[in-house]
Amino acid sequence: MYPKTINNLIECFKKFPGIGEKTAERLALSCLTMDDETIELFTNSLKNSKKKIKYCEKCGNLSEEDLCAICKDTTRDNNILCVVEESKNIVLFEKIGTFNGKYHVLGGLISPLDGINPEDINISSLIKRIKDEGVKEVILAVKPTVEGETTALYIRKLLEGTDVVISKIAHGIPMGADIDYIDSLTLEIALSERSQIS
Amino acid sequence: MYPKTINNLIECFKKFPGIGEKTAERLALSCLTMDDETIELFTNSLKNSKKKIKYCEKCGNLSEEDLCAICKDTTRDNNILCVVEESKNIVLFEKIGTFNGKYHVLGGLISPLDGINPEDINISSLIKRIKDEGVKEVILAVKPTVEGETTALYIRKLLEGTDVVISKIAHGIPMGADIDYIDSLTLEIALSERSQIS
Repeated sequence: MYPKTINNLIECFKKFPGIGEKTAERLALSCLTMDDETIELFTNSLKNSKKKIKYCEKCGNLSEEDLCAICKDTTRDNNILCVVEESKNIVLFEKIGTFNGKYHVLGGLISPLDGINPEDINISSLIKRIKDEGVKEVILAVKPTVEGETTALYIRKLLEGTDVVISKIAHGIPMGADIDYIDSLTLEIALSERSQIS
Repeated sequence: MYPKTINNLIECFKKFPGIGEKTAERLALSCLTMDDETIELFTNSLKNSKKKIKYCEKCGNLSEEDLCAICKDTTRDNNILCVVEESKNIVLFEKIGTFNGKYHVLGGLISPLDGINPEDINISSLIKRIKDEGVKEVILAVKPTVEGETTALYIRKLLEGTDVVISKIAHGIPMGADIDYIDSLTLEIALSERSQIS
């Protein structure tokens, strides 16, 4: 019942994950009241997203140039490499502001059931990079799922026999959380990975 | 921390109502995996939304031409006019498929507190249309809020002395709802507007 342009907008918005019919309609209609500047920026960015955005040749992060901003940053520590699943994980770590090493984006996790094998994600480039750049510590910061654990184990196996220190980020009770509401798996890990305090 | 294009996309998505930082990030990143066709349709529709979409000269509905599809439809009944707040209300009524009259979009409701006076919405065009077209029944289909009731009352006053039948859509218990969970105001209206069944 809407004019064609609005129907097209609704169809486009519906293609986004988590956007249903009603939300798509609401978003499409709010385009009509946006200022020209925003529409201009929006359309240009959408076009550029396909043209300009590529993956960093070194770490696999999203970038508009051959090397991403973090890989080009000479003030960062080349000795420590934080291995993450996706580019957006980097943003989370950068928000903390305390990590000064570099990153490596796997672009996925090993999941044979979904047809994702080690050669489908950026593991060989990780191993090559560790050897070429003389990386001293690799921090595995993948999620604690079957896929994450498999990927971590696989990387550990590949680095066996080298003197690279491999660590993984800590799992346990989130800061500020109430122990009453923590699932038993998390509590089990929190217990087994306890640290001595005196 | 994202490349400029992605940051711009995130900023654009954040301008939509109900879209926060996290959702904007998720939507912006999913643009990267969209096919070229969708991006093309999306950018064109966004541009056209500012250029092509206007309001129907007669009823105030969204349209790409001077007259909207409903006003141009000669098979519809000119004698009944359904008065709604927004264009998207028309879509809801059209989905039922049983209403064969025409519509009039007010483009808002009278709300002195928000600075919306009768002359700011399409009331004068409604009255003119009723007289010019010889409309026999006006159905007020505005929401049952203070603003809705005020607007309905105002329109009723303007049509006093004419022989136009004025009706409003029924308020009461929604179909399939459990009476236990109905608010007392709705129950009060359902009781006072009861209909005799035998």
